[in-house]
Amino acid sequence: MNQDIYSKLTTFKEARKNRGRLLVNCPDQPGIVAAVSKFLFDHNANIIESSQYSTNPVGGTFFIRIEFECPGLQAKKEELKQEFSKIAEGFKMEWQLSLVSELKKIAIFVSKELHALRELLWEWQSGDMMAEIALVVSNHDDSREIIESLGIPYYYIPASRENRAEVEAQQLKLLEEYEVDTIVLARYMQILTPNFVAAHPFRIINIHHSFLPAFVGARPYDRAYQRGVKLIGATSHYVTNDLDEGPIIEQDIMRVDHRDGVEDLKKIGRSIERSVLARAVRWHLEDRIIVHGNKTIVF
Amino acid sequence: MNQDIYSKLTTFKEARKNRGRLLVNCPDQPGIVAAVSKFLFDHNANIIESSQYSTNPVGGTFFIRIEFECPGLQAKKEELKQEFSKIAEGFKMEWQLSLVSELKKIAIFVSKELHALRELLWEWQSGDMMAEIALVVSNHDDSREIIESLGIPYYYIPASRENRAEVEAQQLKLLEEYEVDTIVLARYMQILTPNFVAAHPFRIINIHHSFLPAFVGARPYDRAYQRGVKLIGATSHYVTNDLDEGPIIEQDIMRVDHRDGVEDLKKIGRSIERSVLARAVRWHLEDRIIVHGNKTIVF
Amino acid sequence: MNQDIYSKLTTFKEARKNRGRLLVNCPDQPGIVAAVSKFLFDHNANIIESSQYSTNPVGGTFFIRIEFECPGLQAKKEELKQEFSKIAEGFKMEWQLSLVSELKKIAIFVSKELHALRELLWEWQSGDMMAEIALVVSNHDDSREIIESLGIPYYYIPASRENRAEVEAQQLKLLEEYEVDTIVLARYMQILTPNFVAAHPFRIINIHHSFLPAFVGARPYDRAYQRGVKLIGATSHYVTNDLDEGPIIEQDIMRVDHRDGVEDLKKIGRSIERSVLARAVRWHLEDRIIVHGNKTIVF
Amino acid sequence: MNQDIYSKLTTFKEARKNRGRLLVNCPDQPGIVAAVSKFLFDHNANIIESSQYSTNPVGGTFFIRIEFECPGLQAKKEELKQEFSKIAEGFKMEWQLSLVSELKKIAIFVSKELHALRELLWEWQSGDMMAEIALVVSNHDDSREIIESLGIPYYYIPASRENRAEVEAQQLKLLEEYEVDTIVLARYMQILTPNFVAAHPFRIINIHHSFLPAFVGARPYDRAYQRGVKLIGATSHYVTNDLDEGPIIEQDIMRVDHRDGVEDLKKIGRSIERSVLARAVRWHLEDRIIVHGNKTIVF
Repeated sequence: MNQDIYSKLTTFKEARKNRGRLLVNCPDQPGIVAAVSKFLFDHNANIIESSQYSTNPVGGTFFIRIEFECPGLQAKKEELKQEFSKIAEGFKMEWQLSLVSELKKIAIFVSKELHALRELLWEWQSGDMMAEIALVVSNHDDSREIIESLGIPYYYIPASRENRAEVEAQQLKLLEEYEVDTIVLARYMQILTPNFVAAHPFRIINIHHSFLPAFVGARPYDRAYQRGVKLIGATSHYVTNDLDEGPIIEQDIMRVDHRDGVEDLKKIGRSIERSVLARAVRWHLEDRIIVHGNKTIVF
Repeated sequence: MNQDIYSKLTTFKEARKNRGRLLVNCPDQPGIVAAVSKFLFDHNANIIESSQYSTNPVGGTFFIRIEFECPGLQAKKEELKQEFSKIAEGFKMEWQLSLVSELKKIAIFVSKELHALRELLWEWQSGDMMAEIALVVSNHDDSREIIESLGIPYYYIPASRENRAEVEAQQLKLLEEYEVDTIVLARYMQILTPNFVAAHPFRIINIHHSFLPAFVGARPYDRAYQRGVKLIGATSHYVTNDLDEGPIIEQDIMRVDHRDGVEDLKKIGRSIERSVLARAVRWHLEDRIIVHGNKTIVF
Repeated sequence: MNQDIYSKLTTFKEARKNRGRLLVNCPDQPGIVAAVSKFLFDHNANIIESSQYSTNPVGGTFFIRIEFECPGLQAKKEELKQEFSKIAEGFKMEWQLSLVSELKKIAIFVSKELHALRELLWEWQSGDMMAEIALVVSNHDDSREIIESLGIPYYYIPASRENRAEVEAQQLKLLEEYEVDTIVLARYMQILTPNFVAAHPFRIINIHHSFLPAFVGARPYDRAYQRGVKLIGATSHYVTNDLDEGPIIEQDIMRVDHRDGVEDLKKIGRSIERSVLARAVRWHLEDRIIVHGNKTIVF
Repeated sequence: MNQDIYSKLTTFKEARKNRGRLLVNCPDQPGIVAAVSKFLFDHNANIIESSQYSTNPVGGTFFIRIEFECPGLQAKKEELKQEFSKIAEGFKMEWQLSLVSELKKIAIFVSKELHALRELLWEWQSGDMMAEIALVVSNHDDSREIIESLGIPYYYIPASRENRAEVEAQQLKLLEEYEVDTIVLARYMQILTPNFVAAHPFRIINIHHSFLPAFVGARPYDRAYQRGVKLIGATSHYVTNDLDEGPIIEQDIMRVDHRDGVEDLKKIGRSIERSVLARAVRWHLEDRIIVHGNKTIVF
């Protein structure tokens, strides 16, 4: 099975070797699209998909995501970047040009509950999540077998309030060693320190088991049960230093009723958490998300 | 059109002249269903629909709602009640026996925003909400024409923080005069005093324009916009003295995205508020809701 | 109330007097976006919203919808069209440039069931549907009062299989007289002849009371009930000469269960029909829909 | 992990050793509930959950499902059945009394696509699907490893149109050998003969990859794509001899748009198929489904 996944990834990369993505945001003003699209045309790139948004046509911020096909892209990448930086300067752009064939390297952090991890592995095995899973870090040893059977490096690092500093030092070292781009907290259940978060701005994706901002913090299903809500939800967001307050990427809900006890809510909730996290991670890997203040634009 | 509605109501009442509803809750113990169903059978009543729930089979609270057909019900009503009270005593029941043909009398309180009111009137005109709309009370005069054209008494009572006491006195007098059972706050936007609420325990239905407990209080759409949520919702609940904390009857949501400004959220929200309130009111009119602590059982 | 609507429409038109929309489709090739955005920039137009799609980057069809702000647009409209036609020629474009301030004129066709009509009127009165309702045509006289009270011309034209030719002749004359752009069949229940349909290509919007292609044709709710489906739906589509086979614009569903009889399905269905038709009409009015073969692209 | 599942099942059975389920249907008439609930009370059984439905209070069919707790149930089972058959006779009941602790034995039939199988295994491993998975039968050998690693007997039986008779003979023998109650076709993709179907009336659950009755038969996603639908769905139903026409148990849908190609529809569809089949199987295992004509009542 393992073999299978890597051959899927290789096929994907080969098929998209000329595919690039350009993400831009800058103060809105006339002429941005004209300049960017002329640049791509002049470099022989054909626009495949393009989405844009402006917070306000007058004095607002402009965002665009372009996916393009450009023959010989891998060789021309640095040249393109250098050329584009001239345009970017004129419009005061923040921008990013990436190659679809350079897959992101992700680390998955997990604890005792494995449903979110399993969903990600599933998507990955089915060829629906195009990334390198560089490593899995867990503070319980339950998932070792499943991870190692897929040929993924597995690190069991028991973590608690007490040893947080050492644990994070060890984790940060691993992340550097494996050149990780993105960290997915698949129900990791440990709070990260500002130090750890600052090292990965908008590169840590969490799944919170409630419909935020309802039930921020611990034991959301118990509190949802107490409140007698008729819908429960899950929220995937980028991690910031304000607990459960980072930019929301995706949310979803399911219906519950008076017959559902806390255990039923958890069970129903697991299914929402799985799909919400999987969507958020996929959008992140496809460079579809731009963070703007404490919100996300999802193209 | 007016004529039409009243003829629909009359047809409905005539067709259900033998239809009754029994709501019971009591400490759970064996034999409750046997006793209740034997009682109905002995009185020649056929069970049409029955739903039950127990918070816990051992030491929990038992709830049942039975809809039955009983020839000559209108004449036998008092006798049935008297007989049933004997059973009820043995099981320490709280109970209620009502006739479907005795329509509930409702008062609708409204302010400037008319979408929730319009939805209720619509349901009512279509024959989907079987009630007598006894009167409409508004603190703005915008809905007079639409209400009076339907032959419904309309009271324009300007309300503000300053004159709350007098206003409520006037309102309470009207509610008594019209023998109102149920008050629907169709975006009334004024806070009711404990005095007013206490006079109508679990008989006041509100629509809150958020997915509670997220965004309790004022300006929920603005706050949802600020937070960057990906779903917005509405919640219908019984009014208690804790603002937006009463037992939730129904909730629903719709998807929004980064392109939606506050005005878009309000517009999308109006459509959720309309359907959530309409469902809650319909369930209340059909005696489907039992309040238990701060939650509802909706059969 | 009437006064109110027209003042809302006037405010809307005034606020958007410089707002234009450009819809384009053509064979995909590099340089289209560059050319179009340069054109807009050269004419001092700022892109507010832009969406594009290509059926296939190589040899496919390219679609784009651009909303832009251009000072003095109303005066420059003809000039812009003339200039753009030169670009259009080079790329073999089909295209359309329209002014947001020139509201579409719609005719609503209705029969006995009024829920879909009411929803449209509601959206219109709330300022959520920006159009001129030029006239309402009905083959039953039930909606006269409600229509005329809004100051909208109302035509009662009894229609049946027998008098179809004369009826359509009369209708076509009215549509021409009122310079109607768009016809909305709000549960009109009469089949239109190829002659009538051909006169308004992709300008007639229907609401079908099923989740197409399930239950094409008559009595869909009865057939849904017979089949025992667990969800029912509604579909809004452009009318072509193949019954219920035209390009689908929007669909939605709601959950039903074994307790729901045919009448319940109809009642639940009405609420789906209302919202699905309202969304389809709104998207059409905002020039968001491009028909491609027998499908729609909805931007 | 394997160990884990079996200990979960054992715990479940032990905790519910006194839990029974009674399913009844009969011509509706007064006194049924009274008789059944008196019977349970007389045998010291406490009703935990009860749902009922009547197709028509006059001359209709009555259905009830009761879950009850009865001390010493395992020993008293046969006695209860004998006693109940007397009541059943009087009311002309079809009925079934089952013990929750006697888990159903299921066979899963699968082919090349493994997502539906995986979802079932997942639910089973999480303790959310209480059954014995007696065996897995596949006409491709892809799932052997995953199945055998869970300690489940695996049979690879290549099947095609040509060898259908022998294949089914072999399958029927296995089903008998393993005393299988329920067969789940988790995207098995082979048509079963009337002979096979007749041997398991309403005991074969299929997942069809469309929103039935739309797209009956082969290649539904391709056809959904051709038709340009805006929602795609999946349907779980009992298998009868009419292809895709058996009683529907559960359906669900997800939104798609013009950007989704056939492969996207399949990918989105897989997620709907997974959850719809899992729900249908769970309801079946919990004896929540009664077939009535070509429909299901799901309590």
